[in-house]
Amino acid sequence: MMEKASKAPGRVKEIDSPSNPIIKELKGLEKKRVRTETNSFFVEGHKLVLDALDGGWTVRTLIVAKNAAGENRVIELISRCVAQGVDVLLVSNKALTSLTRRDNPQMVCAVVSQKLGSKADVLDTTGTWVALDRVRDPGNLGTIIRTADALGASGIILVGDTTDPYATETVRATMGSIFANPIVAIDEPAFLDLASQFNGRIVGTHLEGSVDFRVPDYSTHPTILLMGNEQAGLTDDLVGACDHLVRIPQAGTADSLNLAVATAICLFKAREHGLAAVGEDLS
Amino acid sequence: MMEKASKAPGRVKEIDSPSNPIIKELKGLEKKRVRTETNSFFVEGHKLVLDALDGGWTVRTLIVAKNAAGENRVIELISRCVAQGVDVLLVSNKALTSLTRRDNPQMVCAVVSQKLGSKADVLDTTGTWVALDRVRDPGNLGTIIRTADALGASGIILVGDTTDPYATETVRATMGSIFANPIVAIDEPAFLDLASQFNGRIVGTHLEGSVDFRVPDYSTHPTILLMGNEQAGLTDDLVGACDHLVRIPQAGTADSLNLAVATAICLFKAREHGLAAVGEDLS
Repeated sequence: MMEKASKAPGRVKEIDSPSNPIIKELKGLEKKRVRTETNSFFVEGHKLVLDALDGGWTVRTLIVAKNAAGENRVIELISRCVAQGVDVLLVSNKALTSLTRRDNPQMVCAVVSQKLGSKADVLDTTGTWVALDRVRDPGNLGTIIRTADALGASGIILVGDTTDPYATETVRATMGSIFANPIVAIDEPAFLDLASQFNGRIVGTHLEGSVDFRVPDYSTHPTILLMGNEQAGLTDDLVGACDHLVRIPQAGTADSLNLAVATAICLFKAREHGLAAVGEDLS
Repeated sequence: MMEKASKAPGRVKEIDSPSNPIIKELKGLEKKRVRTETNSFFVEGHKLVLDALDGGWTVRTLIVAKNAAGENRVIELISRCVAQGVDVLLVSNKALTSLTRRDNPQMVCAVVSQKLGSKADVLDTTGTWVALDRVRDPGNLGTIIRTADALGASGIILVGDTTDPYATETVRATMGSIFANPIVAIDEPAFLDLASQFNGRIVGTHLEGSVDFRVPDYSTHPTILLMGNEQAGLTDDLVGACDHLVRIPQAGTADSLNLAVATAICLFKAREHGLAAVGEDLS
């Protein structure tokens, strides 16, 4: 078989007017419906676009502010995209401000294809996954995706009707970690089915959990750390799927930790065995 | 001496128009300048107003949506405020929406007097304080205030030019913990002076910290946990004031934890000895 010809290089197009139809189309990506229909999302900032390319994600369009197109690192990024067949839009500041609805927009943005993980990714794991029951807040979700990456978790499972991981606000809060780990989105029955096949332990946090979250030994089995909705906690069926129900001891009144904070505290414990200790003993 | 006569009861006033001058004046509290000049701030939600009253903070004005004024718990709150001499505004939904700039505003809000802590609070401590160097993000600050309360810290020190703890977005993120612990706001020289008198250990987090944050023994001395600015970390002078420089081991690239998350992970460790373990041993 003949080797496939390399892709045609991307085209470069200039856009000045904020009312250009391409700008209007890109603005549509702030709506979940449009993101889902086009299977794509909007990414802001040089670092995040690089993270997408380096992670092997499909960049569809690169958007660059005209007055930044002369910077070395931006020229490098444009060249890399054009060589990969990605179209590049050189836009006026006015158009970029309109597109991002920000007074000080990032000089480099991109449209990237969505890419969700599969149940098989979870079943194959030897590590730790974070499952979130109906998480509502985009900032919480983005922060949890970032934390999971930094603490060496294997991925995120979104259970039921959650906020969209590809919303611009969420992607922003991930600081690039959206491109690091798989995200699996399933409904509750599918999660319960997955849980029944999972070759490890499911540890749920629950206000009525009678066990301190530091008690289970997380180093001996793969783990799914299951966190409840911000207001309602876990559903009864999800509680029933847990091997352990744990809680974080607190000094104040019950349930006063933010979801992203509670997830981080539990996840650090669950990953601790895999995180290299640094430094000498001071005690 | 005669016993002081009890305060005159608060007056109840109805406001329908969003352009009423009182509404305009209250709206001013979204500006830091106005909050500082009036030494007050805006609090949203029944729970937070109760937290303020229960914590002995001075409520200046209670604002209630007219269509909520018939609910039992709201009637109780109004009665309590009027008895304490607090004026009550019964406002139309339209005026409340305008005042809070939210489509679904909280039905109960209040104006509360600011109340900062003092350096003496820090010097007297036997517990743990969280110091934040030039924290910028209101959501981070609010979440850290909430976390510090839940994990039993003694208070927050804001060092240098930080975001305003009394901004509405920050107060919202504290979920009521703004009323729980003292907040001390000082410039860097004053902090360095405080540090030199502090009868305990100052533990700073630093990317180049060579010690794992789990290594110091936090149970033997009072501790100030010192966290750097979101972008720049700690200044050199603050680094110089630390007894220990620690870091959180991470799996990914360096410095990929959100500030509120990093603070929570370190603070849990620093407070662990004071947080009651729950449940039985499962291992």
